[in-house]
Amino acid sequence: MLIRLAYDIQFDLPADVAMAALLHVHPSRAGDLLEPDELLTEPKLNVTSYLDSFGNRCARFVAPRGHLRLSSSTLIQDSGLPDPVNFSARESAVASLPNELLRFLLSSRYCEVDRFTNIAYELFGNITPGWGRVQAICDWVHTKVAFNYQQARPTKTAMDVYTERVGVCRDFQHLAVTFCRALNIPARYATGYLGDIGVPLNLPMDFSAWFEAYLDGQWWTFDARNNVPRIGRVLMATGLDAADVAITTSFGQADLRYFFVVTDEEQAGMQSRSVLETM
Amino acid sequence: MLIRLAYDIQFDLPADVAMAALLHVHPSRAGDLLEPDELLTEPKLNVTSYLDSFGNRCARFVAPRGHLRLSSSTLIQDSGLPDPVNFSARESAVASLPNELLRFLLSSRYCEVDRFTNIAYELFGNITPGWGRVQAICDWVHTKVAFNYQQARPTKTAMDVYTERVGVCRDFQHLAVTFCRALNIPARYATGYLGDIGVPLNLPMDFSAWFEAYLDGQWWTFDARNNVPRIGRVLMATGLDAADVAITTSFGQADLRYFFVVTDEEQAGMQSRSVLETM
Amino acid sequence: MLIRLAYDIQFDLPADVAMAALLHVHPSRAGDLLEPDELLTEPKLNVTSYLDSFGNRCARFVAPRGHLRLSSSTLIQDSGLPDPVNFSARESAVASLPNELLRFLLSSRYCEVDRFTNIAYELFGNITPGWGRVQAICDWVHTKVAFNYQQARPTKTAMDVYTERVGVCRDFQHLAVTFCRALNIPARYATGYLGDIGVPLNLPMDFSAWFEAYLDGQWWTFDARNNVPRIGRVLMATGLDAADVAITTSFGQADLRYFFVVTDEEQAGMQSRSVLETM
Amino acid sequence: MLIRLAYDIQFDLPADVAMAALLHVHPSRAGDLLEPDELLTEPKLNVTSYLDSFGNRCARFVAPRGHLRLSSSTLIQDSGLPDPVNFSARESAVASLPNELLRFLLSSRYCEVDRFTNIAYELFGNITPGWGRVQAICDWVHTKVAFNYQQARPTKTAMDVYTERVGVCRDFQHLAVTFCRALNIPARYATGYLGDIGVPLNLPMDFSAWFEAYLDGQWWTFDARNNVPRIGRVLMATGLDAADVAITTSFGQADLRYFFVVTDEEQAGMQSRSVLETM
Repeated sequence: MLIRLAYDIQFDLPADVAMAALLHVHPSRAGDLLEPDELLTEPKLNVTSYLDSFGNRCARFVAPRGHLRLSSSTLIQDSGLPDPVNFSARESAVASLPNELLRFLLSSRYCEVDRFTNIAYELFGNITPGWGRVQAICDWVHTKVAFNYQQARPTKTAMDVYTERVGVCRDFQHLAVTFCRALNIPARYATGYLGDIGVPLNLPMDFSAWFEAYLDGQWWTFDARNNVPRIGRVLMATGLDAADVAITTSFGQADLRYFFVVTDEEQAGMQSRSVLETM
Repeated sequence: MLIRLAYDIQFDLPADVAMAALLHVHPSRAGDLLEPDELLTEPKLNVTSYLDSFGNRCARFVAPRGHLRLSSSTLIQDSGLPDPVNFSARESAVASLPNELLRFLLSSRYCEVDRFTNIAYELFGNITPGWGRVQAICDWVHTKVAFNYQQARPTKTAMDVYTERVGVCRDFQHLAVTFCRALNIPARYATGYLGDIGVPLNLPMDFSAWFEAYLDGQWWTFDARNNVPRIGRVLMATGLDAADVAITTSFGQADLRYFFVVTDEEQAGMQSRSVLETM
Repeated sequence: MLIRLAYDIQFDLPADVAMAALLHVHPSRAGDLLEPDELLTEPKLNVTSYLDSFGNRCARFVAPRGHLRLSSSTLIQDSGLPDPVNFSARESAVASLPNELLRFLLSSRYCEVDRFTNIAYELFGNITPGWGRVQAICDWVHTKVAFNYQQARPTKTAMDVYTERVGVCRDFQHLAVTFCRALNIPARYATGYLGDIGVPLNLPMDFSAWFEAYLDGQWWTFDARNNVPRIGRVLMATGLDAADVAITTSFGQADLRYFFVVTDEEQAGMQSRSVLETM
Repeated sequence: MLIRLAYDIQFDLPADVAMAALLHVHPSRAGDLLEPDELLTEPKLNVTSYLDSFGNRCARFVAPRGHLRLSSSTLIQDSGLPDPVNFSARESAVASLPNELLRFLLSSRYCEVDRFTNIAYELFGNITPGWGRVQAICDWVHTKVAFNYQQARPTKTAMDVYTERVGVCRDFQHLAVTFCRALNIPARYATGYLGDIGVPLNLPMDFSAWFEAYLDGQWWTFDARNNVPRIGRVLMATGLDAADVAITTSFGQADLRYFFVVTDEEQAGMQSRSVLETM
């Protein structure tokens, strides 16, 4: 399957501002790209990129005061298969986790693992460890939390989600990630493209958030927001939580004016359909 | 100057538990060691170590149910000079920061940078950028926050410190680090040994926390708790905040029973003095 | 001046639910009413009312499962004068406050006075006590906080407003009330009708929130949201904060479906103008 | 049974300060007093008292800079019976609650009922309403929260107790009160004397906190901290939470230097035993 990936994001900048952007396809998917994955800027800027401590490809640039447009269009090859499921995947004892995974058990800005230890064990402590327990976490979050774009806010933490029971995709994943870590299951936040391929409903295309849990020696995709295996996820970045993988981070004021994402199957001779998304 | 470094930390473990410990001297100081820096355990355990994503040497082991003792004694060479001061050190524009430093501008578990942006600019926005501004932050925190061992708690964040105005050394540093980051000054939390060498008062030896701010192309030591240049800091670990550099992290229950640290100048023929500290 | 006051509020109720409503004009204004101030319900319910501990006239009823409509229309006489201003009004020493006012110095659900003591003194401690200090508080809140209907949430406290710097009218008043109390100035939250009489801009009519501060032996109206004297406020209720004076409190689920308020000057032969408001 | 009640509380005051004190026996117990219940002050001050909005007898005075001592000794007659228990007491429908009880269903400073609705129903929604459900709440809090004098802090809310699982008597009651209100059971915070009469362990005498729940048309005593019926409670004050019924409230700085409470059975010819308590 071929998937067209594109975005057009525009800001008004009251002053020059340094920015970092996690808008590239994740290095683990770079080999699937059929067109270059280039970040175009208007005005044309000197963009450099580097791998951050999580292995994401991060772009940096300084944008001058005025209007800024970030855009890209690329094509990626995808298996077309839904997220893999492995009901028999087991949790690893902490002692057997690779060194570099220990950080995914700790507290982070939006995942107050230290405040959730008892709550997580009360809710999920009696469930058989392994895939089923992570799935039980997703089921709980998916059932208990309502989706509402109006209820997003940048400071909302897992504890806020747990008490307010409403949020957007990042909030669902933060709560699920926190429950996993509190149970000593390594979990990381993921961001990328997710459209409506294979979904009966005609859903909008957008950047989205999901998470990964480490079972049986590898990372697996979970999504407490949608909570069904989906086709066509294209990973952009992983981190401890949304603080690490913001699509754009502005070190100064930047007012979002326009936000548009395309992620859709592209067939021979077919025009890509696009949908406007406001954050 | 020679400094004797030692600790004796004891736990009761109700069940087997995996632990990680940042009890080694930081790799940047390993060349100054005159005796091996070995983590001894009772019972004798298989201890491995690795460098975490911040470059700290982290020990890992699984401790069996029962009593656990972690101890060490080593000797390190030190310049004997107080923390360097450079009043003319300038802040770097974000655009010119090395890639790997951008993470030290972000929010973390105990440093809610996203909630402090306005507050930091209201308090320190009019102060000339550079060393003097970081020092102004330290002065503010040092003056406004009272030290009280009774008011420590593991979940206390920079915002809690800002409103409660009381805490222990980690709390002082979390608030100062958060102010720095909110002003786009890279700052990282540091933990290590700090005794009373060169201090007129006879203060207890202990592990301590301080922080580092990045000015003029390098990291500089600041300490919002003590707020005077000190002699004899021996760095153990740096990270975004205390969540990254806990002395010990137990992935299960571990009840601290005894805590004892030595860090004192050792002269020819002189016995090291030691002081009992309860956390 | 005559002011037409009316509302039409509709809910869907998944089950029978007990409700309390502060929809009556405040007893202090009852003498100005030219038409009865009756709460009409569809279906017709047995509505009783009582004076709560703050002196507000509170209606109670049990609504059956299904659709519920609360409505009223009444006419009130008003001085037509803007909120009084008294620059020379002085703060009272706590010792000279009437007994019943001490509660208006304490912490409440959305006003964490205990967390603001230092902050309030840092910001306003050097300002001459009296009217000017309360006005300085209003100026600060008015300048620093942005109005945004999208950023309302029922759990937002004064501390959240102080850090997020965005909210709706209740949020502005909560922060101002908290600053006042932290400085030992009695302050209470007020809710009522406020339209656009005398305002050059054509603003929507709505229920609104403002607050009252106690100076020189009496309560005075302040409004950190609008921050200019306004004509035509009609008080409905006062309390410690919004928890005490919710327009409606449902002891069970009640889904708001429609919300419409009229508050406008009525002249001989003139039709009242009405504007639809969604909460 | 006769119970000797006494206290000796001392402060250092850096400046003159107005204070309010809820140190009198509650008016509902005034008829049982065998000696006057007088608040003595050193220096001798003009103390007035009034009934607050909850019906508590509140003392007020202005204390001059320097040392302040508040003390009293009185004798009260008590039934000598443990807290009554009525397993068949039923919850009242909100619709049938007296008007003045509705406030005890709302959120307050330390009881964020609005954040606990879902949690309370998840934990206790399936338990048969009535006495047994309030008891289940007490059992849960008593079992899940650890008592630790070192972990007290004035800003700790029910949510903090729920996540930190440690606190002092006020914290236990705040969490239980919040659960009750979230389930539409009126609950109020109570403070008073509680010693060790009838308790096999020799516990210290102290002021203590408990709570009252409204079932079957009356208030009943519950105590999530001790969670057994106790003999010899002497009520001083009730309110929404600890913000309303602080033993002393200082409108300015007051540093506690000494705190001593007596509450013990007094028999003919027997000297009262006394125990020193630090808060």
